[in-house]
Amino acid sequence: MNECMSILNTGLRGIDVASSKICDVRGKEGKLIYRGFLVQDLAKKAGFEEVSFLLLYERLPNKDELSDFSQSLKQKRRIPDNIFTVLKALPPAMNPMDVIQTATPLLIQNDKTVGEPGIENTLHSAENLIAGMATITAAWDRIRNNREIVPPHDDLSHAANFLYMLTGDIPDPETARFFDISLVLHAEHSFNASTFTARQVASTRAHIYAAVSAAIGSLSGALHGGANVRVMQMLKEIGSKDHIDAYIKRVLDSGDLIMGLGHAVYETDDPRALILGPMSKRMGEIAGQPLWYDLSRELEIKAKAAFKAKKQREIYCNVDFYSASLFYAMGIAMDLFSPVFAVSRISGWSAHVIEEQFAMAAPKPSLYRPGATYVGNYCGPDECAFVDLDNR
Amino acid sequence: MNECMSILNTGLRGIDVASSKICDVRGKEGKLIYRGFLVQDLAKKAGFEEVSFLLLYERLPNKDELSDFSQSLKQKRRIPDNIFTVLKALPPAMNPMDVIQTATPLLIQNDKTVGEPGIENTLHSAENLIAGMATITAAWDRIRNNREIVPPHDDLSHAANFLYMLTGDIPDPETARFFDISLVLHAEHSFNASTFTARQVASTRAHIYAAVSAAIGSLSGALHGGANVRVMQMLKEIGSKDHIDAYIKRVLDSGDLIMGLGHAVYETDDPRALILGPMSKRMGEIAGQPLWYDLSRELEIKAKAAFKAKKQREIYCNVDFYSASLFYAMGIAMDLFSPVFAVSRISGWSAHVIEEQFAMAAPKPSLYRPGATYVGNYCGPDECAFVDLDNR
Repeated sequence: MNECMSILNTGLRGIDVASSKICDVRGKEGKLIYRGFLVQDLAKKAGFEEVSFLLLYERLPNKDELSDFSQSLKQKRRIPDNIFTVLKALPPAMNPMDVIQTATPLLIQNDKTVGEPGIENTLHSAENLIAGMATITAAWDRIRNNREIVPPHDDLSHAANFLYMLTGDIPDPETARFFDISLVLHAEHSFNASTFTARQVASTRAHIYAAVSAAIGSLSGALHGGANVRVMQMLKEIGSKDHIDAYIKRVLDSGDLIMGLGHAVYETDDPRALILGPMSKRMGEIAGQPLWYDLSRELEIKAKAAFKAKKQREIYCNVDFYSASLFYAMGIAMDLFSPVFAVSRISGWSAHVIEEQFAMAAPKPSLYRPGATYVGNYCGPDECAFVDLDNR
Repeated sequence: MNECMSILNTGLRGIDVASSKICDVRGKEGKLIYRGFLVQDLAKKAGFEEVSFLLLYERLPNKDELSDFSQSLKQKRRIPDNIFTVLKALPPAMNPMDVIQTATPLLIQNDKTVGEPGIENTLHSAENLIAGMATITAAWDRIRNNREIVPPHDDLSHAANFLYMLTGDIPDPETARFFDISLVLHAEHSFNASTFTARQVASTRAHIYAAVSAAIGSLSGALHGGANVRVMQMLKEIGSKDHIDAYIKRVLDSGDLIMGLGHAVYETDDPRALILGPMSKRMGEIAGQPLWYDLSRELEIKAKAAFKAKKQREIYCNVDFYSASLFYAMGIAMDLFSPVFAVSRISGWSAHVIEEQFAMAAPKPSLYRPGATYVGNYCGPDECAFVDLDNR
């Protein structure tokens, strides 16, 4: 077996399939970099609009550019009325990820130049998707709860407006900024499964709406999105600090994982978790629900110690560990955690679609089209003789 | 550079990423094999329901099994009413591929066990998708043309019922059988781009509806689906036999391709083209439109000769070369050619989703998650210093 044959059935784990200028994950150093910038700096100093511009346009905007970009998103928050008609036709119990996968291609109606060549058309589509998916997600939560849809508010940032459309109330500035930072932190993470799906669909020269809808499907899988939901379920199962020790013991003894601890790439605490933790603490105070952060923090300390004692190595918080209690304290329904992830990651997906269709067109052949090794069939390794239906 | 590094930016072309028991494409021999059976045998002796059973259940059905399977599809042809409400809310000019990507996840409403573990639940979902996508596609064509939706007909095969729902008329047996054979021929072709998309989404443990909707997005790309549309556009552009010589000369002189000739894998005429050609001829006679087959046939003969004279090698018909004139003579709108491809390929996609989630679970890690090589950013190879907005 040569080295390349070892790719078979590996899920391409650790195999670089493309060059990219979008994101670098430096696991050993605990660094996540968007277009050259440390995510810590971006979270501290920039907002989601600024970071989305950075991801799409490959550089930070100046004041006029940021103002124009934000204005464009504001215009595109208003989605075609028939999308609400569609959402209202759906059963309220439908999974929100299925709903946004369904509804996202309908944003195409707002887009006069879709399918036309030129990077500027796809950038325009990306803005339409970033703005529109937030509206769809918030509207679905209103509709399924039999509440009036809240039209977008032009004076609010993307993050504040999303919370406003979701709750009907203008969020306090601190909550709005925490949500804004959360969107920044989730916007991009290199070739994860949903991003690879988006790139793969885009490689066929399908339009960005098709690629993003496909990525949402990928994110809906239990092994990809939804980890912070399972963190929250775990916190609810534990319920009080008194139960933490027993919970850790039970999980470690059974060989299971503690949700939100451990990551395939980082060999430190995830840089995003270090930002989300303090926000979760403060958000719990604002919401008058300090329990979930407190539980998380004590669980983190005790689980890390227990893991080290049992396995003689460190385990670290990943991005989902504190986003769970943060989003929960913000009053976001647990089955919206993955859609909120999509509302943020849409910027990263869009940047990858654009890189796939434009920047990388020259060195790469047009389309992801791997092979498979045929390993036989039920009649043996070679061709089967057809047997007529009467003789089976 | 070692061999594995050469994967970078190749689109995984020629790289086997998984073992599979579903399909073998033997390009040198001109053989296409589904689960051990030559596609020629299946086209001659089996129908789409039988072949779908073969793809899903890994063996040919006996009489009772085929009857039960066909009955199950017939029941599932009746889709939830709110899907029609959704379709009617969409603008008639919307691309049918966008429409079916949007509407497919809604079939989930018919599925009480979606997301529950067990291969039998996913097999059930696959039957729901195979049946339902045909209804959605036909209904959309009726709705956009402002015609009454035609409810499914329980006495008809899957193929005949699709044509019935599309036109409102029960097709003559010969036409129905030709369409049936076309569905058999398009049902599966190993790891093409849309199938790889379906598998990749399925690898995250997303449900089959999410995976199939994503695959439709992939198929909608100009480099994947839609080739037979371009064959038909070419035939219309040529318009009469008198123009064939000039057309070939112009295309070859400009270095362009003749649509429907040439394939990345086959080094013979595509075995499917050898079956589609005679059907196209006969269908042209039935429809009183012999021109498109005649043009195709003469173009094939002359283009092959011209190619050989100019490039000293053979060129061969691919599957799209005769399916164009066949579908056109059947009265199928050109922008439904790709949706009809999906109505057939759904069986193959489903088989691959099932293999990904069940058969292959043991040897393969859970999820396609490749890497990318970060190649720097606009401020250089290392981290950029953040510059405040005021100073940009």
